[in-house]
Amino acid sequence: MRQVTPPKRLRLAVLASGRGSNFLAIQEASQNGQLQADICLLISDQASAPALERARNLGIKALFIDPKAFPDRDAYESELVRHLQGEGIDFVVLAGYMRLVGRVILKAYQDRVLNIHPALLPSFPGLHAQRQAVEYGVKYSGCTVHFVDQGMDTGPIIRQAVVPVEENDTEDSLAERILVQEHQLYWQVLQLLAEGRVYIEGRKVYIV
Amino acid sequence: MRQVTPPKRLRLAVLASGRGSNFLAIQEASQNGQLQADICLLISDQASAPALERARNLGIKALFIDPKAFPDRDAYESELVRHLQGEGIDFVVLAGYMRLVGRVILKAYQDRVLNIHPALLPSFPGLHAQRQAVEYGVKYSGCTVHFVDQGMDTGPIIRQAVVPVEENDTEDSLAERILVQEHQLYWQVLQLLAEGRVYIEGRKVYIV
Repeated sequence: MRQVTPPKRLRLAVLASGRGSNFLAIQEASQNGQLQADICLLISDQASAPALERARNLGIKALFIDPKAFPDRDAYESELVRHLQGEGIDFVVLAGYMRLVGRVILKAYQDRVLNIHPALLPSFPGLHAQRQAVEYGVKYSGCTVHFVDQGMDTGPIIRQAVVPVEENDTEDSLAERILVQEHQLYWQVLQLLAEGRVYIEGRKVYIV
Repeated sequence: MRQVTPPKRLRLAVLASGRGSNFLAIQEASQNGQLQADICLLISDQASAPALERARNLGIKALFIDPKAFPDRDAYESELVRHLQGEGIDFVVLAGYMRLVGRVILKAYQDRVLNIHPALLPSFPGLHAQRQAVEYGVKYSGCTVHFVDQGMDTGPIIRQAVVPVEENDTEDSLAERILVQEHQLYWQVLQLLAEGRVYIEGRKVYIV
C-alpha cells in the first residue's frame, strides 16, 4: 500500500477540452477556502475551449497546446509534462478532457492524474455516459472520481456519488442532476489528497 | 408501451438451484400479507438443492427436474413450461437459478420471468457479482430486479437498491449486506406486478 504523498498546499493543473464547469467548481472551492489547493495552470487541446478564457479571466495561466502540432501522442504529452513540471504541478485534474491520457503523462504523474466520470463506473464508460444510463434504463447512476490509468475510465476509484434516475429523465436532465454532485465530489477528493489521506493498494483506494 | 397485465392474485413459480433465501423472503411476504401473490410451485435443477426441502416443509409443490434427462435445453424447458402452465403460473421468479433461461421459457412467459442480481447492473453481471465489486473497488454496489431476456443479466431493469461498499468489506460481508436489500426488493417488485403498475417500453420499465 502506498500513500499518495501530500505536499504542503497542492498545486493543480486542469486539462479541459470544453467549458470546464468542474474546473470552475474546483476553483471556487479553492477560493472560498474549502480546498487547500490552487489551480496554477489550465491546458486545453482545443483553441476554442471556453475554459481557456475563463481561466485567464480568473488570472490562471492558460495554454492552448495543439496536438496536431506534434508528430505523435508521446511528443504532445512530453510538451504537456514540460509545462506541468515547469509549474511544479502536483496533481493533474481532467475536466472534460476528451483525450485518452498516455504513457508519457502517466509515467511523469503516476497516481497523480485524476478524472471525473458522470456514471457509476464500471457502468457506462466512455462518451455520453448519461445517455447510456437513460437508454439502458438503470434506476441509479451518479459520478465517479478515479485515478487515471491507460484504459478508458478504468482506473482505481476514489469516490462515487449516487444519483437516482427518474422515469422521465432525459440525457440532459440526468446530466444536470449528476453535475451538481460532480461539482461537490471533485474538490472533496482533491481535499482528501491535500490532507494526505488517500492510499492506493492494487486497484483499491483507501481513505484514512 | 405494454402493460404487464395483472391477474387477480398472482400465482408464482420459483426456479432455484441452491438454498433459495430469496424464495423464503418472498414466501414470508406472501404469508404475512405484504405480497398479494402465492408461490405455487418450486422447481430446481439440482436434486440436492435445500430450496426443495424447504418448499415441501412449507407445503409448496416442489419438483426436481434433471436437465441431464433431456436431450437439449429446449426439451428441458418444454418440460418446465408444461409444469408451469399446468399450475397456471403467472410469473416465473428466478432465485439463485444457475442456468441461462432459453427461448422456450421466454416465449411461453414473455415479460413474465424475473431475476434478482446482487449488483447494480450493468456493472458486474454473471457469477460472483459481490466479489467482482469488491475486487474492482467500487464505492457503491447493490441489487437489481429485472425482466429476463436471453442475455446474461441484461434484461430491462425494474428496480434497484444501492448498498455502500465499505473499505474493509469482503465478498461475504458485502454479500450479506446486499442480501438484506434483496429480501425486500424482490417481493416489493412482485407486489407492483400484482397491482398492475408495471409497464415496459423498449428496455425501460415504468411504475405507474
